Amino acid sequence: MGFAKDQLQVLHRLWEHMLSHPFLLGTRDGTLPRETFLRWMQQDYLFVEAAIPFFGVLLSKAPPHHRRPLSQAVEALHKELALFEERAEAVGASLEGVVPTFTCHAYIQFLMATAYQRSYPEAYTVLYAAEKAYHDSWKVVRQGLDPSSPWMPFVENWAGEAFGGYVAYLETELDLLAEAAGPKERARMSELFRLTTLYEIAFWDMALSGAGWPGATDDIWQVRSSEG
Amino acid sequence: MGFAKDQLQVLHRLWEHMLSHPFLLGTRDGTLPRETFLRWMQQDYLFVEAAIPFFGVLLSKAPPHHRRPLSQAVEALHKELALFEERAEAVGASLEGVVPTFTCHAYIQFLMATAYQRSYPEAYTVLYAAEKAYHDSWKVVRQGLDPSSPWMPFVENWAGEAFGGYVAYLETELDLLAEAAGPKERARMSELFRLTTLYEIAFWDMALSGAGWPGATDDIWQVRSSEG
Amino acid sequence: MGFAKDQLQVLHRLWEHMLSHPFLLGTRDGTLPRETFLRWMQQDYLFVEAAIPFFGVLLSKAPPHHRRPLSQAVEALHKELALFEERAEAVGASLEGVVPTFTCHAYIQFLMATAYQRSYPEAYTVLYAAEKAYHDSWKVVRQGLDPSSPWMPFVENWAGEAFGGYVAYLETELDLLAEAAGPKERARMSELFRLTTLYEIAFWDMALSGAGWPGATDDIWQVRSSEG
Amino acid sequence: MGFAKDQLQVLHRLWEHMLSHPFLLGTRDGTLPRETFLRWMQQDYLFVEAAIPFFGVLLSKAPPHHRRPLSQAVEALHKELALFEERAEAVGASLEGVVPTFTCHAYIQFLMATAYQRSYPEAYTVLYAAEKAYHDSWKVVRQGLDPSSPWMPFVENWAGEAFGGYVAYLETELDLLAEAAGPKERARMSELFRLTTLYEIAFWDMALSGAGWPGATDDIWQVRSSEG
Repeated sequence: MGFAKDQLQVLHRLWEHMLSHPFLLGTRDGTLPRETFLRWMQQDYLFVEAAIPFFGVLLSKAPPHHRRPLSQAVEALHKELALFEERAEAVGASLEGVVPTFTCHAYIQFLMATAYQRSYPEAYTVLYAAEKAYHDSWKVVRQGLDPSSPWMPFVENWAGEAFGGYVAYLETELDLLAEAAGPKERARMSELFRLTTLYEIAFWDMALSGAGWPGATDDIWQVRSSEG
Repeated sequence: MGFAKDQLQVLHRLWEHMLSHPFLLGTRDGTLPRETFLRWMQQDYLFVEAAIPFFGVLLSKAPPHHRRPLSQAVEALHKELALFEERAEAVGASLEGVVPTFTCHAYIQFLMATAYQRSYPEAYTVLYAAEKAYHDSWKVVRQGLDPSSPWMPFVENWAGEAFGGYVAYLETELDLLAEAAGPKERARMSELFRLTTLYEIAFWDMALSGAGWPGATDDIWQVRSSEG
Repeated sequence: MGFAKDQLQVLHRLWEHMLSHPFLLGTRDGTLPRETFLRWMQQDYLFVEAAIPFFGVLLSKAPPHHRRPLSQAVEALHKELALFEERAEAVGASLEGVVPTFTCHAYIQFLMATAYQRSYPEAYTVLYAAEKAYHDSWKVVRQGLDPSSPWMPFVENWAGEAFGGYVAYLETELDLLAEAAGPKERARMSELFRLTTLYEIAFWDMALSGAGWPGATDDIWQVRSSEG
Repeated sequence: MGFAKDQLQVLHRLWEHMLSHPFLLGTRDGTLPRETFLRWMQQDYLFVEAAIPFFGVLLSKAPPHHRRPLSQAVEALHKELALFEERAEAVGASLEGVVPTFTCHAYIQFLMATAYQRSYPEAYTVLYAAEKAYHDSWKVVRQGLDPSSPWMPFVENWAGEAFGGYVAYLETELDLLAEAAGPKERARMSELFRLTTLYEIAFWDMALSGAGWPGATDDIWQVRSSEG
């Protein structure tokens, strides 16, 4: 068994916890308030935007045969952003001027810090765990979502075959990287797999609860300085 | 008025919110449960450890005349770690094997991501805001803390004159960096000042509440894989 | 006048020196030995490969509206690599197992170090200067190259309209970045423009002279350890 | 036998080539023109200055038990700079306004690019190889240098016991890092060891020859834009 499947087994309680998150089940069953889903959309749009710089650092450290696939993944992210924009317009929501919640901001920092500070196999672990989490999470939603739901295009994107093939490719490559790594690096990769799962759960949880910044009332944190 | 004072004025509501956090007032008044303070000690120990890599990246981007002061600040961090260890021993607490909470982990990621991804003046803003926040916060605690409190050495460290002089030096340098920056970079510096303040508040809040990882029960997240 | 044109004026002696390099004139006039051109092809292939990680770091620091163009530029680099491979095959040369000369290795390090260590506008200056140097250099070659030359596709690639449009776009963006920068950052951008030009000249010079590593005989440096 | 000694054995021809470089032998025998030695002093001063940022990035990626030693090494670099300044004054030379030659600039880029882009064990290899090269090179000079030579303090610094102990410590740690690494990473470490040796030779060679930038006459490259 490869490294990826090993981790999923070690973390199975955490992974199942993630896959049974009320946000996912509520989306699947159509019981989640529309505003709650829109909050996820807005925050995840910020997250997908921020994933492009993450892929940039990966690209800067990747072995030559990973450069093409990573470039194509950046292309796919641009398409994902267009999907968010199209869906937002379709349901009359706005993605403009959204301020990141604590959890959204923190997860983005985790991506960037890992990509810059850690080795390529360690950063790649975070990439795989995050993509795998999305694939599995949206497959949960797919099992029961009303086909006429406005959120169906998200399901089709992340639970679909093309994304599944991409996740399978990432798994193969992650397994090879883990195989080539020494035991200490592999232990750090495991820990990053676990942390990524915790960040994924925190993200669904923030989408559900609307949690902002701990200790700060909404009127205080929801004011972003204008950025260049 | 320089950039630093400007920001403190713009953010005065947030800053006052931070300085009146129940964790600080409870520590000052001796009403904070010992376990709560120990939780802060353990998490902040992890944070100070992680600040050394942050200073490393700053050092790698600093103008030549900042290199010496930054090296000395790293030296001061090693001494802070020794202070934590000495205090922990004095009160019979342990700093070993502590697992970072979400907020602690997130704040560390914010430091590292900013240092690597952003310009030196932007990263320096985070440095200043965090050090200034500590200086001001512990000055709040000093006003009323029982002199025989076991936490007095922390007060003396961060509310004291030496640290105050260091913060004043950082302010002068930050003002010069902001003066030399263009308006867009200065706007990004402002936003990072605000975000650092939000992270500071979140940290005090986590220390008080004992919040772990959103959506994950304690038995799930408090298991760290062994790291190399 | 914008920043880019300013620099070209300040550096006009250096720039003209570059554009009248014997390698370029010899290629144009058909007097350059075939082996000399092949040496350039092999070393520049390594350089283009290494430019992808450089773009990766740029992508990680870019403002949002630069992300798409930078992604497209990475795509163009993949096509450039294919052009090298196609040309190498057409003329019966090999691009496999080439060991970088000192100058090739050094220039790549300069790209990577600048991208990681410096601000985005500074790294962008190196990008512009290198692309502009190639556009102008190959326009020199175009003026007189035998249309049946096997090197014509390189001329068409870098001296052509599409590449010219890309360089013009980079110039517009560089000017905006310089305009938004403070005077100290702008001075660092100028210095990087100058250094990039020196590296460009050094590259043509190495292609012409076949210079390896200073102080090391060819039999010593031309053995690369096998890399992963 | 550990990794470090292995590399020295594999590279013994290159290493001996370095240790018998005319610059070292001429310095030892007192036959090297004073101006030539001063050129080395000026360029190496720039190099030592630039090594501080290199240590900064190492510090940002180091395992916790390496942080203290790396901080102390930064302290030692500050002292080395003072040694250069003291020696320069003693012999009436200036270290001000020196412009880096191609080789000096390139070697610095190699340090920074490696530290940022590569894994910690890979960057550590460059650190060890460079320090070991200095220790061994100055031991060559020590065997025969007139004790009243103004360059004796450099010999005492790098050929001395304290520095020898530091290099021995680095060797132990490098061996442990290599032992923990997988075979592919170890192969990349080997290649970086070889490259560092080539850069070291190139540096002595530039000091001896006074080589500036390839293809650019001295009047052209020796003008540095004023930097911030």
